[in-house]
Parts: sequence; structure tokens; C-alpha cells
Amino acid sequence: MNAVDIINKKRRGEALSKDEIEYMVMGFTDGVIPDYQMSALLMAICLNGMTKEETVQLTGIMRDSGDTVDLSDIKGIKVDKHSTGGVGDKTTLIVAPIAAACGVPIAKMSGRGLGFTGGTVDKMESIPGFVTSMERDQFIRSVNEKGIAVIGQTGHIAPADKKMYALRDVTGTTESIALITSSIMSKKLAAGADAIVLDVKCGAGAFMKTYEDARELAEWMVDIGKGSGKSMTAVISNMEQPLGNAVGNALEVGEAMDVLKGGGPEDIRNLSLRLAAEMILLGGCAADRDDAEKKALEALESGKALEKFRVFVANQGGDERITEDMNLLPQAAFAVEVRADEAGFVTGLDAMKIGLASQHAGAGRQKKEDEIDMAAGILLDKKTGDEVAAGDLLCTVFGNNKAKAEAGAEEARAAYTIGTDRTEKPELIKEIID
Amino acid sequence: MNAVDIINKKRRGEALSKDEIEYMVMGFTDGVIPDYQMSALLMAICLNGMTKEETVQLTGIMRDSGDTVDLSDIKGIKVDKHSTGGVGDKTTLIVAPIAAACGVPIAKMSGRGLGFTGGTVDKMESIPGFVTSMERDQFIRSVNEKGIAVIGQTGHIAPADKKMYALRDVTGTTESIALITSSIMSKKLAAGADAIVLDVKCGAGAFMKTYEDARELAEWMVDIGKGSGKSMTAVISNMEQPLGNAVGNALEVGEAMDVLKGGGPEDIRNLSLRLAAEMILLGGCAADRDDAEKKALEALESGKALEKFRVFVANQGGDERITEDMNLLPQAAFAVEVRADEAGFVTGLDAMKIGLASQHAGAGRQKKEDEIDMAAGILLDKKTGDEVAAGDLLCTVFGNNKAKAEAGAEEARAAYTIGTDRTEKPELIKEIID
Repeated sequence: MNAVDIINKKRRGEALSKDEIEYMVMGFTDGVIPDYQMSALLMAICLNGMTKEETVQLTGIMRDSGDTVDLSDIKGIKVDKHSTGGVGDKTTLIVAPIAAACGVPIAKMSGRGLGFTGGTVDKMESIPGFVTSMERDQFIRSVNEKGIAVIGQTGHIAPADKKMYALRDVTGTTESIALITSSIMSKKLAAGADAIVLDVKCGAGAFMKTYEDARELAEWMVDIGKGSGKSMTAVISNMEQPLGNAVGNALEVGEAMDVLKGGGPEDIRNLSLRLAAEMILLGGCAADRDDAEKKALEALESGKALEKFRVFVANQGGDERITEDMNLLPQAAFAVEVRADEAGFVTGLDAMKIGLASQHAGAGRQKKEDEIDMAAGILLDKKTGDEVAAGDLLCTVFGNNKAKAEAGAEEARAAYTIGTDRTEKPELIKEIID
Repeated sequence: MNAVDIINKKRRGEALSKDEIEYMVMGFTDGVIPDYQMSALLMAICLNGMTKEETVQLTGIMRDSGDTVDLSDIKGIKVDKHSTGGVGDKTTLIVAPIAAACGVPIAKMSGRGLGFTGGTVDKMESIPGFVTSMERDQFIRSVNEKGIAVIGQTGHIAPADKKMYALRDVTGTTESIALITSSIMSKKLAAGADAIVLDVKCGAGAFMKTYEDARELAEWMVDIGKGSGKSMTAVISNMEQPLGNAVGNALEVGEAMDVLKGGGPEDIRNLSLRLAAEMILLGGCAADRDDAEKKALEALESGKALEKFRVFVANQGGDERITEDMNLLPQAAFAVEVRADEAGFVTGLDAMKIGLASQHAGAGRQKKEDEIDMAAGILLDKKTGDEVAAGDLLCTVFGNNKAKAEAGAEEARAAYTIGTDRTEKPELIKEIID
């Protein structure tokens, strides 16, 4: 086999065989195929595409390029959940205990990552004492005994994807549905679950800006997951404005508590119930979708999900009293209010701008080495569709660094568009693909 | 400016500005833009194309990346000739003295190169004593005084093209009309002529296999040359079978002498007269195309072209007696005859296979360091359309290494297809584009 022949084949728009894809991807990962050949192939893939069959092969090769997690010692159908990422997205903190309370074993490996806030692992670590590193045996035992455990991504997961992603980032080859799908799915498949519920976001605060693009990505991920032997469901949800009212690590844990206690903003509550129901259905813990919805709601309203969260926090060394007293979570030294200059309606609230404001206030990392301010972030008082009077509080920006909080507040102000026309609240859940 | 933005722009199919092309090409040449970014851009250009305006810019940037030859001290309109390369193509040796005899100043820089035989420089160097290296002043003076001089490519011509070509070769990005055109034209423009006649070959022995592809390349080269301020004409000619009967350095000089003396094979004579007429026309030495044809024919038949060749050889230190006595050219120690096994018609004579046979007999370089056997090559007795009896001589393979000549003879035999159907001689000149 020969790299130039394979690149030429893709340049001509032909489908590559499994062996050809493996030759290029593993050769590149092992340093035998030089980066300039891989980047030419990646551009040819961006422009000529890959079939779903090719993408299944690519995904499998990247999955098998490193460690894969063996969850076979856990009883039941293990269901994972993945979000393509957004602002204020604390659904995992709510969905996981609801699904676990309904009998779905939750063995979740989560990331930290760069972005507007930390990842799920960072958010959980805002709970005093909570640890996300544990040995495999303890992880398996925790899931079997407590029904739920969350660990940080360990070891050497999909190194081929890691190396290819770094190259795509600097060669203008990120925008390919086949490459995006295989990048996400190779890591999810390596995490070992039997079924995966995807939350695919669209809008200003999401990677996919339009519903059409999000729908295409959702369909591809569902197809590639099924082609790899997994049960799959995708929910397409709106990310024009942030999800819920809280953005920031400890603030989001607090809002998750509100929801688990039966309160909280309607959007985050509804989406969490939807995702939990899909996990319960794929986990075989409900007869049908209606039954799954009923079970999710019952787990939430009965307090069983909150109790599951308490057990989960305690099992991983966290202070379980935070479920009762949110003041035990990290508190910010500074709070900067953002108030409306004029009366009207919130006609737009740009999720991306709120995300960046939150990051700049201290809630997220810009570089891998950055320290997160766990108490930093934003609480939204007004969202799209709300009526405001001049002087009304729009949001509050928190942080332990005053200058950063103030800079975040200026950015948060610019995220709001106040107009004179009454505006509908945006539809949150757009479609379910399974 | 940012490389990723520029790559993304081309990935989306947009045209790049002159500044953007320069940023990438010169950055790559200077080692600032890494090869993996350039290869991604090259693949995007292969698949999304470049406009003619972009290609004019790219060509100019590559031309200006190194030395350019200043021919302004030479009186008259300097006309260059370029062939896209084929087997048995010794037209320069005939065309240049015809055009020079008609008053066109010929200041030619020629290559050696890899391939079936050497380049024009190698062929001329098969004449005992002939030298192709000279100082600029002597070169200019030779053209002004003798009307013609040929030197080997010197200095640092289009280094950006050299580096990009090496990358294209290993990244599956050779097949792009814009990149092929700019690669050829940047070097021709650097050579400093005012006008260029292109001989674009098509068929089995050419880079462009089909008439359609050759026509597209010819049109692009003419347009890009005109866009760069040059007068341009392209002749599209057939290269299914070798041009003329001689393939190999000294053998081709011998055949050029035959033509300049009024003999030689009809195909090489006709194509040479055609190309010479186009040069005479662009050089402003004829009133119109008919007049140019008449002048070319007259220069050939009167012996003025042969005399110009003699002066040219003598001026560059070569043994001018070869114009009278071809036995003064290098002679091969071995000659291997290839004879027909059966009677019939030559229905095909594969130029590529004859080219490789000639190369393997010793006439061409496989690697840059290889020494050429100036006497090696092939003389064809039969070509497409000829009738043969069993035992007739098809061709003779020459060389100073017996094993190589015998291997070449086996390959030459395989280039012939003998059939029972009478076959037309192929049409040689397909089109003139100006």
C-alpha cells in the first residue's frame, strides 16, 4: 500500500477500504505517514466526503488506536450520554441520577476540556471533597453497588483522534461531517457503554449553528453508532441562548440541585427529563417511551433522583450536605449586576457571548494549564422573551477576581438584545432521532 | 493574515487574493508556513480549482521567487519555445535554427531533466566539444552576433515552484490544471522571452493522455502567458507514437541534421516547420501566418537553417563537422535488431514503452545522478500504419552496454502491436491555439 495512491483515490472521490484507512490513520499515529500526507487526505475527505461505511471503519480504527474501557463486569445495559456542548449545559448532573434511580447503570467517563465553563468533571469537583479519579475495580464496584459513578477521562483514549484533531485544527480541515462524527464517536465508543443518548445542540452557542447542520450530525452519529453495534438516540436541542439560568461550575451544581428538588428553570428541567427518559428506554428499564417519561418524572418528583445524587456524591468523597445547603458550595467574593438601560423585551440572548463572558470571569479555561475559579460565572435573571423595565436586573456576574468579573459583566451586557417587539420563547427540543 | 483562514477560504471554493497567495507560497518557500498547511491548500486547489486571475498571480509569485533572466540587451522580439515533453522530440534542434535563420533572436535556456532521453542540453552535449554553460554577457553577445545560443538552466529559477512541486509529488496533488499551468509558466516566464510558442503533446507518450486534457492545458497556458504580458501560441500535437524515427541523444541530433538537410521523417519535418512558422510570426518576422510558413520552408530548403546550426555549434565550442559527417557523433558498441514475428500492419506503437526502452538502454536518467550513454537509443524502421512482412526489421536498439541494449530491445518489441487491419497514420498536428 502507498500513501499517494490512497490520497489520489480519495481525491478522485472514491471510497477507501478499511485497510487503506487503517494504513493512513495508524501510520500517521505511529509517525510513519508524515503530517503533510495526512493533511492532504483530510482536505480530500472534507471536499469529497466519506461514505457511512468508511466512517464506521475510521471510527473503529480511531477507537482501537488506544485504550478501551471494558464495562462487562457491570450488570445491565450501560447507557452513556453525550452532549455536543453548549453554555449552561448541566444536564448530566440531573439526567444521570434520574436514570440511575430508574435502574440504568451509569458508568460515566467525563472530560474537563477547554471552554466557557469546565466540563462535567470540573463541575462535580466544585463540590468540596469530591474526587473523580478512581481505580477501575472501584469504579465498577461503585456502579454495581450505588448505580452511578463518574470518573475523569483516564489513560490513552483514541490517540489517533487526538493527533488527527490537532492537525485538522491547523489545516482548515475541521468542517467535515464524517471527520466530526468519527472524532466524537471514536471516544464515546472507547468508553464502553452499550447504548448512547446524544444531545446535539444547535444555535449561536453550539458548534453547529443551524438546525440543518445539527440534524445532519445527529443522523450521522446515530448511524455510525448503530453501525458499530450500539443502541443510539439523538435529541436535537436549542442553544441560541444558554440552557437554564446558571453558567459556571458551582453555580450549575446549585441549579442542578434546584431541578432535582423539583424546581429550577423550565428549560433545563424539561430537557433533562427528555434525555433521562431516552436513557431509561435504551437501558431497557421501561416498556416504551411513554412509560420511560413517566418513570423519569416519578424519579424526579419522588426525590429518588436527589437521593441517588446524594449517594453518588458521598461515594466519591464529596460533601453530601450540599444537597441541603448550597452555601457549602464555593462562593464568589464579587458579584457584578447587569441592569437594563431601557424598557422592552429581550429579543435575543447570545449564548456564545454569555459563554465567553463566563470564561473571562474565571469559570473556564482558555489554555489547558489555566486554573478554574469554581465560584465564577453568571446567573441570568432575564432570558429571551422576557419583558424588562428600565433598571431591571438582567444578570449577575460572579467571581473571585473583581476585574475579571467586571470585564465579564460588560461582555454579558453585550449578549442581550432589548427590543420593542414581544418575542416568543424559543422552542427547546427540536427533534428526536433514533 | 492567517494560513488557516486562507486554507478555509479555498476549501469553501472562494478565490484567493494576490496577497493571500503570496503569503502562503512565499511563507512555504521560506519555511514559515509548514508543509502540512501547504499540502491542505494544494488539495483544496486540486478539488476547488483556481480562477485564471488567481493562476496568473500564483505564476507571477513563483516566477519572482528566484532569479529571472533579463534579455533586454538583445535586439528584437525574443521568442521561446516549450514542449510539454514526449518521446523522440528533437524539434528544438530544428526549429531554433530555422527561426534564427529568419531573424528571430533565439536566447534559449534548456533543461536536462529525468526521462526517456536527456533534455535539449544533453542532446546538444552529445556533439563533441559543445558546451552549454556560459556567462550572461557571452550569452547575450552570442545571440546578438550569431542569432542563437542555448544554455543550461542556471542559478535559482522559481525555487517556490521547485519546493511546491516536490510536495505535490508526495501528496497526491499533481492533477490540477491551475497548478500544472503555473508550474510550467513560472519557469518559462523567468527565462525572459517576449513571446512563447508551446508544443502541447497528447497521447500515450505524453503527460496529457487525451486531446481534451491537452487542449485545456494549452488554453490555460496561453491565457496565463497573455495575462502575464507575453505573446502566446500553442500547437497541440500527437504523441501516441514517438516523433520521428530516432529516440536517444546522439541519434536525435543525427535526425535533426537529416531534417535540416531537407530530408528526415515527414512527421518531425512538418511539426518543426509548423512550430518555426509560429515563432517567426510571434517574432514579428513575417506579415502573416502564410508568410511565416513560406519563410520557414525557404530557410530549410535553402540550407540557411543548416548553416545557422553550424554557426551555433561552432560558437559554443562544438565540432561543426558533424553537420557533414554524422559518424563524428558518439557511436554505440552494440546494436540489437527487433524483427516482426508475423506479417500484418503496425496498428499501434506505444510512445511510453519506446521511451522507457530507450531510457533502460541507457539514453535517459532514472535518478538525477545517472550518467547518460549519449550513443544509446532506438531507431524505428516501422511506425503506426506501416505494413510488415514476417522477419522485417521493426527497430534497432543501440547502446554501449550489451545487457541494457538487449533489455531495451525486449521492451521495444512489446511497444509494437501488429494486427491484420490496415491502419491510418495518425494525424500529427491537432490544433493551433492563439
